[in-house]
Amino acid sequence: MAPVRPLSPKAQIDGASLYRRIQLMSETGPTRLAYSEEDIRGRTVVMEMMREVGLRVSVDAAGNIVGRCGGRRPLPPLAFGSHIDTVRNGGHYDGILGVMAAIECVGALQEAGHKTEHPLEVIAFSNEEGQRFGALCGSRAMVGALGAEDLAHADESGRTLGEAIRSIGGNPEKLRTAARQVGEVAAFVELHIEQGGTLEQARVPVGIVEGISGISYADVRIVGSANHSGTTAMELRKDALASAAELVLCVRRAALDKRCQVATVGQLAVSPNAMNIIPGEVLLTIEVRDLDRKKMMATVKHLQECGQGIAFRSGVQIEFSVRTPIESVPCSEVVREAIVRSCAELGFKFQTLPSGAGHDAQMMAKLAPIGMIFVPSMGGISHSPREFTSSEDCARGAQLLLESILRLDEILHELTGSVE
Amino acid sequence: MAPVRPLSPKAQIDGASLYRRIQLMSETGPTRLAYSEEDIRGRTVVMEMMREVGLRVSVDAAGNIVGRCGGRRPLPPLAFGSHIDTVRNGGHYDGILGVMAAIECVGALQEAGHKTEHPLEVIAFSNEEGQRFGALCGSRAMVGALGAEDLAHADESGRTLGEAIRSIGGNPEKLRTAARQVGEVAAFVELHIEQGGTLEQARVPVGIVEGISGISYADVRIVGSANHSGTTAMELRKDALASAAELVLCVRRAALDKRCQVATVGQLAVSPNAMNIIPGEVLLTIEVRDLDRKKMMATVKHLQECGQGIAFRSGVQIEFSVRTPIESVPCSEVVREAIVRSCAELGFKFQTLPSGAGHDAQMMAKLAPIGMIFVPSMGGISHSPREFTSSEDCARGAQLLLESILRLDEILHELTGSVE
Repeated sequence: MAPVRPLSPKAQIDGASLYRRIQLMSETGPTRLAYSEEDIRGRTVVMEMMREVGLRVSVDAAGNIVGRCGGRRPLPPLAFGSHIDTVRNGGHYDGILGVMAAIECVGALQEAGHKTEHPLEVIAFSNEEGQRFGALCGSRAMVGALGAEDLAHADESGRTLGEAIRSIGGNPEKLRTAARQVGEVAAFVELHIEQGGTLEQARVPVGIVEGISGISYADVRIVGSANHSGTTAMELRKDALASAAELVLCVRRAALDKRCQVATVGQLAVSPNAMNIIPGEVLLTIEVRDLDRKKMMATVKHLQECGQGIAFRSGVQIEFSVRTPIESVPCSEVVREAIVRSCAELGFKFQTLPSGAGHDAQMMAKLAPIGMIFVPSMGGISHSPREFTSSEDCARGAQLLLESILRLDEILHELTGSVE
Repeated sequence: MAPVRPLSPKAQIDGASLYRRIQLMSETGPTRLAYSEEDIRGRTVVMEMMREVGLRVSVDAAGNIVGRCGGRRPLPPLAFGSHIDTVRNGGHYDGILGVMAAIECVGALQEAGHKTEHPLEVIAFSNEEGQRFGALCGSRAMVGALGAEDLAHADESGRTLGEAIRSIGGNPEKLRTAARQVGEVAAFVELHIEQGGTLEQARVPVGIVEGISGISYADVRIVGSANHSGTTAMELRKDALASAAELVLCVRRAALDKRCQVATVGQLAVSPNAMNIIPGEVLLTIEVRDLDRKKMMATVKHLQECGQGIAFRSGVQIEFSVRTPIESVPCSEVVREAIVRSCAELGFKFQTLPSGAGHDAQMMAKLAPIGMIFVPSMGGISHSPREFTSSEDCARGAQLLLESILRLDEILHELTGSVE
């Protein structure tokens, strides 16, 4: 690695200010479902904060909030940010930290009087969580992957996504105007809480994300024979739940054996589900995640074989229906390298790790090089009001985000420069 | 065993007639929920059949249909029968066979001109299945174990048990008049389909029931930690469903290892039950059945210990709540002996077995010596329209019921005689 030199010794994150920003957002949470009144209140706070640090604020046709400031040169903008919507009864850091830190970075640059080569864009994407209408709505629109049929989708109350987008100042009729083209963004960097316990367990304050894991779902139907639990001898049973239990343990075993990153059965339903009837049918969904598509699909295949073995031994039928996988998204080498060097510069210990969760960055990868920085989640808890990241860790993440943006500003400008 | 002598060589069950009776009842099934219109139509058919074979029919205050004929002596009646109500989408044999065979027995005796020492009573108990209002209503009333609070129970439609009983000709205000005292019934014998596959597998046409198994239910709550399935490393999880799966397999293993007769998890619910959230809580119910109370409770204790081990290894909490057990009911030695001797007389191969299911006989045991005869259920299927017992097996069961009643008529009369 080449010797590291400081890029902006004067631009310094104010941890207390960042903490206050997060606190201020908390007042509109912890349930801030996208397109709700709470979301609208939170968005107003974000737009005020953006203006305070000198950003010009606009809301695109998809309802994404974009705060801009110009650079020294007519280059595509360096973008960074995250989202502020939450799940129902969610946390105070998921997404929020990325937006608050981005605003704090701009504030720190302004205070230091540092003007970047690239214009900067702080983005607060709309509806990342997708508790209604599906996830990553705002970032999908920004990469042109949200269409008319998505807009027609209605939630439980009958409101369509189009109407919801209009309620936060978007313009569903002009959705295409929110879409950017490849090259129109120089890079995108997202700071986010880990949402897992790996960094905390390893006592490492920073994670540099290798990529966003792919996901394969298999819907499994196990058909046994519903029968009287008192009269049916054990040897004559075809108990769908006992077979399902074997499969659930195979799923856990597969991931513990490192066949894949994680594997989960989160959803399972028993039929007829009566305490004196042997279960005749079980429906369950297996989820396998890995950065490596081959490993992921090999794990699913292995689990199908486990299912065949269980079916053979127990006399039940086991049907697998494997959905089209959600592909993994690698982070850009250039952006990762910039983050690694910034860590070295700042003296931050880090570890690389995959992101098991989906993020807006994975959509932005369709347009531009992306990178992600993780900070520790206490107890690995997320999507809960008990979600917590210390203010030291938040500040460290924001400082690293700032350094990385400045480093990218230089590297990408030089790269572009060499093309000029 | 003393040499066996035939008791009534002339009283012979007409298999074809029995088959027709079962067919006729089928026309009001396969869903004949207690107190429904279908039940009332079925009861009318039963009462007509009873009258045709010379029985005097009455409906007691609980809605039990009782068909009587006098004996040579002023003795308490020998009672036999079962029930005609079904579960939702039930079968054509469960209960029905016992009532139809009892009527056929009386017809055969009448045809043979044989008059018993004891009066005879054919009983069709009301609401055995308890799909609404709880099981064994009629037989509970006959032993004085149905009270005012039971009568006040309402079903989903708001109708009380008292109103339901009135709808089939019972008299809830005079429920106590349905109750018999110990000694008022000489014995009760119930012919029933096995509802399991043991006899069929063993190729034995007759089962002599040792007793009705006791049941212990344990409600189990497993508390793990709901968390993001993508971000939470396998080693850091507290997956309530994976722990539940281990316990489900312990339950099966306990019964396969003959710790108890049968053990089942029929009911299980996962929370929050989302495909991308590690299950935070599972509620399940364990059912253990055995004739031997000690074995049953030792099995429950063993499973609690299994649960403690799982909790210790997985970091989840497992809470057991063991309900007051339903006690097992042994069949009378005298009645079993009479059935065994009748088998020998008729040349029927038999095996003894416990009844895993509950039956009206278990209530009648509070009043009188009881016995039960099982015939094979094809494929062990019950509580389903696919329930089937061959007409040969039905006829064999009815013939054995008849022989057993006649043998009891003699034995019990002699026993009573010796007291006189």
